[in-house]
Amino acid sequence: MMSDKEIQARLDELPDWQYDGVHIHKSFVFGDFSEAFAFLTRVALIAEKLNHHPDWSGVYNKVTLKLRTHDADGITDKDFNFARRVELL
Amino acid sequence: MMSDKEIQARLDELPDWQYDGVHIHKSFVFGDFSEAFAFLTRVALIAEKLNHHPDWSGVYNKVTLKLRTHDADGITDKDFNFARRVELL
Amino acid sequence: MMSDKEIQARLDELPDWQYDGVHIHKSFVFGDFSEAFAFLTRVALIAEKLNHHPDWSGVYNKVTLKLRTHDADGITDKDFNFARRVELL
Amino acid sequence: MMSDKEIQARLDELPDWQYDGVHIHKSFVFGDFSEAFAFLTRVALIAEKLNHHPDWSGVYNKVTLKLRTHDADGITDKDFNFARRVELL
Repeated sequence: MMSDKEIQARLDELPDWQYDGVHIHKSFVFGDFSEAFAFLTRVALIAEKLNHHPDWSGVYNKVTLKLRTHDADGITDKDFNFARRVELL
Repeated sequence: MMSDKEIQARLDELPDWQYDGVHIHKSFVFGDFSEAFAFLTRVALIAEKLNHHPDWSGVYNKVTLKLRTHDADGITDKDFNFARRVELL
Repeated sequence: MMSDKEIQARLDELPDWQYDGVHIHKSFVFGDFSEAFAFLTRVALIAEKLNHHPDWSGVYNKVTLKLRTHDADGITDKDFNFARRVELL
Repeated sequence: MMSDKEIQARLDELPDWQYDGVHIHKSFVFGDFSEAFAFLTRVALIAEKLNHHPDWSGVYNKVTLKLRTHDADGITDKDFNFARRVELL
């Protein structure tokens, strides 16, 4: 589990990801629903591959991902690894 | 747009759907993430087919759908039609 | 149902689509499986929206779509409409 | 890599899977396209999780999976492990 200071330092490497004290999170906006859902599908593939599953929500062309390591009750490398993979999409 | 009374009457036909004053909504719990995401995929297919898109959110094996007709600024037949299709899955 | 001549004329508007005497078809190659599957998901959304379903096949990062109007026992506007939508993705 | 005899012995544990000399394969028929595509999505999640990707094809409500270990140029435990996971869906 990381300290708030470590989390902030790591967030600097990830464009537009933020920390709300519980999760690191980011919202993604796409051209339409189809594009947003295709993104979510790729996120689902990452989640199963890494066995690490984000909380997510969607409104039409917008998808929000929230990451946290439940077992550690905090933010860990797993969350940043996941976020980096998402940024590579 | 339906009155609250009409909405409540229509909800009686749909198991476990509820009205919160803005949306009709229901949460679905599955055996695992894969099953939950397969359900979500089928909901996405309905959404594109009907050109009516729910707000949705998920936490691992749980999916929540929230329906409302934005154009009408309320609940309409479209929402109940969508909910019925979801119940047929 | 279109004549072979009409089909060929219409194919000229669609990059890399071909006619094999039964279907119009095209293969798409992506960076990896995830990208290919996201494409296939968007094709599935189009298929449900238009109620017109291609034959499809995939090998890792490659997806092949084959279109034909079964009811008409040939190629129709529906197939070209579908192919155009796919090209817009 | 397994001998044909080993492959046949292992296939006996898997309902309706067959060996064609190159792949082990099975076709699955569903109630409609949506159900078939939801199944395919779950197969995609397995594929990314195991980093083992089947050849696949579909016609409306029918999905065919073909498995083979390319690196080994034959059938291996990976293919049977994959097929078992699919049967658990």
